[in-house]
Amino acid sequence: MSTDDERHELLEQRYGKGKAPEGVRWNDQIAGMLRHRSVRAYLPDPLPEGTLETLVAAAQSASTSSNLHQWSVVAVTDPELKAEIAATTRMHSVDRGNPQINEAPLLLLWVADLSRSHAIATEAGDSGDVLEQLDTFLVAATDAALAAQNATVAAESLGLGTVYIGAARNKARELAEMIGLPPLSFVSFGLVVGVPDPERPARIRPRPAQELVLHRERYDTSAWREAADDYEEEFRTFREDVGLGHKTWRESVLMVSSGVEAMDGRQNLGETVRARGFLAG
Amino acid sequence: MSTDDERHELLEQRYGKGKAPEGVRWNDQIAGMLRHRSVRAYLPDPLPEGTLETLVAAAQSASTSSNLHQWSVVAVTDPELKAEIAATTRMHSVDRGNPQINEAPLLLLWVADLSRSHAIATEAGDSGDVLEQLDTFLVAATDAALAAQNATVAAESLGLGTVYIGAARNKARELAEMIGLPPLSFVSFGLVVGVPDPERPARIRPRPAQELVLHRERYDTSAWREAADDYEEEFRTFREDVGLGHKTWRESVLMVSSGVEAMDGRQNLGETVRARGFLAG
Repeated sequence: MSTDDERHELLEQRYGKGKAPEGVRWNDQIAGMLRHRSVRAYLPDPLPEGTLETLVAAAQSASTSSNLHQWSVVAVTDPELKAEIAATTRMHSVDRGNPQINEAPLLLLWVADLSRSHAIATEAGDSGDVLEQLDTFLVAATDAALAAQNATVAAESLGLGTVYIGAARNKARELAEMIGLPPLSFVSFGLVVGVPDPERPARIRPRPAQELVLHRERYDTSAWREAADDYEEEFRTFREDVGLGHKTWRESVLMVSSGVEAMDGRQNLGETVRARGFLAG
Repeated sequence: MSTDDERHELLEQRYGKGKAPEGVRWNDQIAGMLRHRSVRAYLPDPLPEGTLETLVAAAQSASTSSNLHQWSVVAVTDPELKAEIAATTRMHSVDRGNPQINEAPLLLLWVADLSRSHAIATEAGDSGDVLEQLDTFLVAATDAALAAQNATVAAESLGLGTVYIGAARNKARELAEMIGLPPLSFVSFGLVVGVPDPERPARIRPRPAQELVLHRERYDTSAWREAADDYEEEFRTFREDVGLGHKTWRESVLMVSSGVEAMDGRQNLGETVRARGFLAG
């Protein structure tokens, strides 16, 4: 396939037929990111030698606020521990476990981690109170996310599949105990990594037009509505194609924005995170 | 340069001579991420046509929690507005502005954005109270970071330079007003994008050994100390090479972990974010 054909095809899968933005520049890295899909069906195959070290090298190469490295990653491969984590973080609201955690050989738990900074501060005779600020919480969570996204791009470039596991926060307190996290750290999210099952291939999930998220010079509070309306068609077609029941995008937003029922325990995250030493300020 | 030579050279720049991890797998995408450096000196050249649309397409291709797209990006190119933002978010603690914001043609402000979800919930007759949870705050901040990191990888693949601007939070309230952000949104960080000045090239900044951040099966609370000790040599050499004064890595951690003086206003982030509708729960 020519580069132009590849660009055209991937942009139409990403934005819907006839809805791709104009003038997008192209190379293998950009094609790789446009090709992204969350993979929910894996082969049991182990990862090739050196894969974990490669993902961590990519992750460490991402920017980290003030070069402080306030994140960690726990690589879980033990099937028993994975099963325990999958069962604990199970989503009851939709009667769904996280079968990918058991299927795939690797679960990466991305940790927002101020514990090393806290140790360094207190061992120097400081209180470390600054680490209880919302800003430091956000810095650690952002560090973890930037690192994880580089690991994701690296994994996909190696032909592997990934899926983020927000449900890792469903039982934040229990998970922290299970993997022995120190105070001033918590698992922000998980990331499953494995070999995609070619018999159950994942699809590229379409996105709304750029106008939903992109603002020029100043924030435009109205432009998203037309983009959201236009998106409903792509959203419906995608759900039909992958065999999901009828639901509009707005309904999917409402499902998670209008009651704690769908939170599966994540409504307790604030309490857990505070108990772990964050956000006292 | 052969692939093996490139791998060897980039890994030694990233981890220090003789300290690279073994067995790292290699391709152009991974090389691109390993080559990352924060660029703080730019030419005034405008970005080629289609660059912004390309970065946003890459950003939208990142995973977004539950497909809710709870992030936005404000692309600032107006020199006057950039100058105003640079002056407002100036770091007084180190007597340093953010000259890159003025030098480079593009400043991307990455917004953790629950405002659309809130509008959809309240227009359907719901209170939207769920959006005041810490979990939803974290989801939006993570969405923004994953999107931004894809944009960074895309920019670098096009030969552009970037640098994250955490100082965008120094005056979070003022910046939100300046760019007209709606309630339930805030700028989590900025990202400068431009053409690197070849006369003032950036260096790859070394990272500590993988043992600082990587844990296997369960968190090991002690392994980071040896990695941190080993890192001091690379840290010192890097600072000498780029003409920075003497400081150990532990001292740099202490500088930001032992007093609000270095926070330049970011100690008010919690108050601002709460006033903007987050974290009431």
